[in-house]
Amino acid sequence: MDTKKTDLSLPDSKKTYITTADGDVKVGMRRLDLQNGEHITLYDTTGAYTDPDIDTSNGLPKLKERWNNARMNSSEGFHTQLWYAKRGIITPEMRYVAIRENQGAEGENLITPEMVCEDIAKGHAVLPSNRCHPECEPMIIGSRYLVKINANIGNSALGSDTDKEVEKALWAIKWGADTVMDLSTGKNIHATREAILRATPVPIGTVPLYQALEKAGGKVENLTWELFYDTLVEQCEQGVDYFTIHAGLLREHIEAATRRTTGIVSRGGSIMAKWMSLNNCENFAYTHFEEICELMRRYDVAFSLGDGLRPGSLADANDAAQFGELDTLGRLQQIALANDVQTIIEGPGHVPMQMIKENMTRQIESCHGAPFYTLGPLVSDIGAGYDHITSAIGGAMIAWMGTSMLCYVTCKEHLSLPDQNDVREGVVTFKLAAHAADIAKGHPAAMARDNAMSKARYQFRWRDQFNLSLDPEKAREYHSEMIKNTGHDNEFCAMCGPDFCAMRITKSIKNE
Amino acid sequence: MDTKKTDLSLPDSKKTYITTADGDVKVGMRRLDLQNGEHITLYDTTGAYTDPDIDTSNGLPKLKERWNNARMNSSEGFHTQLWYAKRGIITPEMRYVAIRENQGAEGENLITPEMVCEDIAKGHAVLPSNRCHPECEPMIIGSRYLVKINANIGNSALGSDTDKEVEKALWAIKWGADTVMDLSTGKNIHATREAILRATPVPIGTVPLYQALEKAGGKVENLTWELFYDTLVEQCEQGVDYFTIHAGLLREHIEAATRRTTGIVSRGGSIMAKWMSLNNCENFAYTHFEEICELMRRYDVAFSLGDGLRPGSLADANDAAQFGELDTLGRLQQIALANDVQTIIEGPGHVPMQMIKENMTRQIESCHGAPFYTLGPLVSDIGAGYDHITSAIGGAMIAWMGTSMLCYVTCKEHLSLPDQNDVREGVVTFKLAAHAADIAKGHPAAMARDNAMSKARYQFRWRDQFNLSLDPEKAREYHSEMIKNTGHDNEFCAMCGPDFCAMRITKSIKNE
Repeated sequence: MDTKKTDLSLPDSKKTYITTADGDVKVGMRRLDLQNGEHITLYDTTGAYTDPDIDTSNGLPKLKERWNNARMNSSEGFHTQLWYAKRGIITPEMRYVAIRENQGAEGENLITPEMVCEDIAKGHAVLPSNRCHPECEPMIIGSRYLVKINANIGNSALGSDTDKEVEKALWAIKWGADTVMDLSTGKNIHATREAILRATPVPIGTVPLYQALEKAGGKVENLTWELFYDTLVEQCEQGVDYFTIHAGLLREHIEAATRRTTGIVSRGGSIMAKWMSLNNCENFAYTHFEEICELMRRYDVAFSLGDGLRPGSLADANDAAQFGELDTLGRLQQIALANDVQTIIEGPGHVPMQMIKENMTRQIESCHGAPFYTLGPLVSDIGAGYDHITSAIGGAMIAWMGTSMLCYVTCKEHLSLPDQNDVREGVVTFKLAAHAADIAKGHPAAMARDNAMSKARYQFRWRDQFNLSLDPEKAREYHSEMIKNTGHDNEFCAMCGPDFCAMRITKSIKNE
Repeated sequence: MDTKKTDLSLPDSKKTYITTADGDVKVGMRRLDLQNGEHITLYDTTGAYTDPDIDTSNGLPKLKERWNNARMNSSEGFHTQLWYAKRGIITPEMRYVAIRENQGAEGENLITPEMVCEDIAKGHAVLPSNRCHPECEPMIIGSRYLVKINANIGNSALGSDTDKEVEKALWAIKWGADTVMDLSTGKNIHATREAILRATPVPIGTVPLYQALEKAGGKVENLTWELFYDTLVEQCEQGVDYFTIHAGLLREHIEAATRRTTGIVSRGGSIMAKWMSLNNCENFAYTHFEEICELMRRYDVAFSLGDGLRPGSLADANDAAQFGELDTLGRLQQIALANDVQTIIEGPGHVPMQMIKENMTRQIESCHGAPFYTLGPLVSDIGAGYDHITSAIGGAMIAWMGTSMLCYVTCKEHLSLPDQNDVREGVVTFKLAAHAADIAKGHPAAMARDNAMSKARYQFRWRDQFNLSLDPEKAREYHSEMIKNTGHDNEFCAMCGPDFCAMRITKSIKNE
């Protein structure tokens, strides 16, 4: 992909920075200029690509290099964000995310660096920050903060290539993905990941087990702890910011899982279960968990503790297998916390609406308030072709209840791999679900954009309506079709025609 | 449109009938044959179009004509379903909908004609049934029943024509619309509606005020009660099953509404408000409400009491204007109930998630358990281009809480009129939201399809997976792309490739 700046830009927007008084922290935002002379400042995941004053042709600026070098060169050495937080030390990364969360808003009830520090210290928030990914702009995940969304990309044995994956990553970021997971399982895993890491200003996650299995020739029976550990080291060094590790799926859970309607539907979970069955021994990620912590601590890679037993059907939701694993994840989270390793907990899956609340409540209890990161949940099994919607419904609900990050699901889920258009639609759909939750839970900076949109609607400022929506290009395109078909573009909704425009009639009542 | 039977059919499905022992009531269903030799019976809105034994080239069979003729010829004359229900008389229509709701399921906790009769008598359910629309298959709307969805069609001054509108109506029915509203405002209103009524086996709703305004030359100042009443008569005679009438928007509400962020966003509401302002007198639909009841009672046309003051932005949600009108609607519902006229209450609109519950609670209280029929609600204002999703999130939630019918919203909402593809996507999206709510509220026949789907997934029965989804054609198309691109089609998810198929690995653990 041609990663010129213009590729990731949106109309009538320009990069603006909010800088701390001491100049140490400079946070990029998207300033959107409105037709009425006002402007609005928006969260921006596109990094330097949308700053015309930065040349990205030789790679992204290494925003965090200075901070990490200072740590490496200090007498105490490098530590994780969690280590600093426990000691009440507010890092530049914490100051960065506090500014970023507020999106230029002023007033009371805003996010402060102190809140961020406290939440990280308690394990209630995670700031993924591998020191080997200096290109990454700091971002915070926790129930108090803007709900984040992840876009999965990655080639499989059946398709895609390295350039395309980088292209997908940047495309996802253009539409607002807060993080990207590279789930590649096919050839060139290392090179694909390297290209993605160097090209992206957002945290990158992986499931290292996939590469370990590739190294084992695709044979679960050849998989070993040593192979797995070496893969973790390799990926730590590359700069992966968080690892999905299925350490909570134990031998004791397998029997219950195989009795399910849809068994195990997590790839990592099924590999681990198979390995345990073949070797007749406990999950190596569980038995070696402290060693893994020791490694990840040295880079500040965060755990995303995988839910290998997430339900793959409504029939399996909230069962003993799922909650048994969740309890184990909660115990592991405490070990990671004690080892200064930040931890996110992964969640379902297929869950009917009336069972969503229990998932959130159990997770908060079992996992001590650690950020929850869910895949949906999908509220029905029969949405094939529309599962971005099935999962956005469940995602919006669980995010309102306290889930901190949503993994997007595309319309191709269960059927095929997403193409570029599906990625865009999936990201925007989940930004919408996340945003609805931000509003519902009362995030201090959430409503400004909706209010600006409503004012633009009432004043028939069409360009602003396009630009204030999450996908300005699509909004404009849909409206243009109408204009082209009718020749009209004026003070009435295109739906209704001039005699039936409710807003125009309202204005006439007010004599505006 | 060519309305040949095949147009509305879905793959591997055929019409099947469940008939009462006395032969009087015969309910059409869709029987879907599965690859494993089993079959599943599904709710079917396509009527005779999917029965190869019925010739529809000269119009639909008049299913209800026999029952209505018997009533007309009886000594007591024709009465509404509500009149019969109050007397504990179970009509053929009530028997029909009870069978239909159960979708072929057997066992306990199913819907019975007695339940239907009781709910109608109390005003808790509505069976729209204009005696001049004998082509319509009986359908029940109420919180105990399957959540219904409505598709809006209709030309505006700016586009579309009669044939296209009939085509859209049938297209919407193919994808599962339970009812269609003809919101035409342009030329040929009468002829368009006539064509739609004669061609559709589902209840048809309208907003008669639109035609009345057309008769007034598009000038609110020329609108009169007499013009409006004549329009109601005309549409009763044609067979419209329910009328949206904005009788609850009173003069006292207008001032609060004009102070809002987005004023009045209901077309009917704004026309009525304008009329009251111009004439300096009360809403004629309110002052003449009993006359309207008297007319509608003679045909069994149901009220869909319009929420002219629904919020058009999150900022206006749950305000004094909205709830003031809702209280008035509740009073009118009691008058209609006393006059044996069935009544649905319309609801919002733009409502953030945390305010949805209050809408439902207030509606149940103010409107005495009458069925609630909402437009979404949209849980954010910034979803332009994706508002089918913004509204499906709110729709699923409010339907779970007790809303009986959802009006679909398409991706073109706020931007343009939907084309055929948008109608399909909108209908399927809302079927999904409605279905998720059916599951959540425990409708006795809701889970069978999801369970069948999950079994098909686990057994890699791809054809069944396509057919069990709400849009089999799209599911098959997406999967085919994958197969075409990779040449693979076997026992693994297309997403993951053979080495990473979780379900295949699970099976290998179980030695299946």
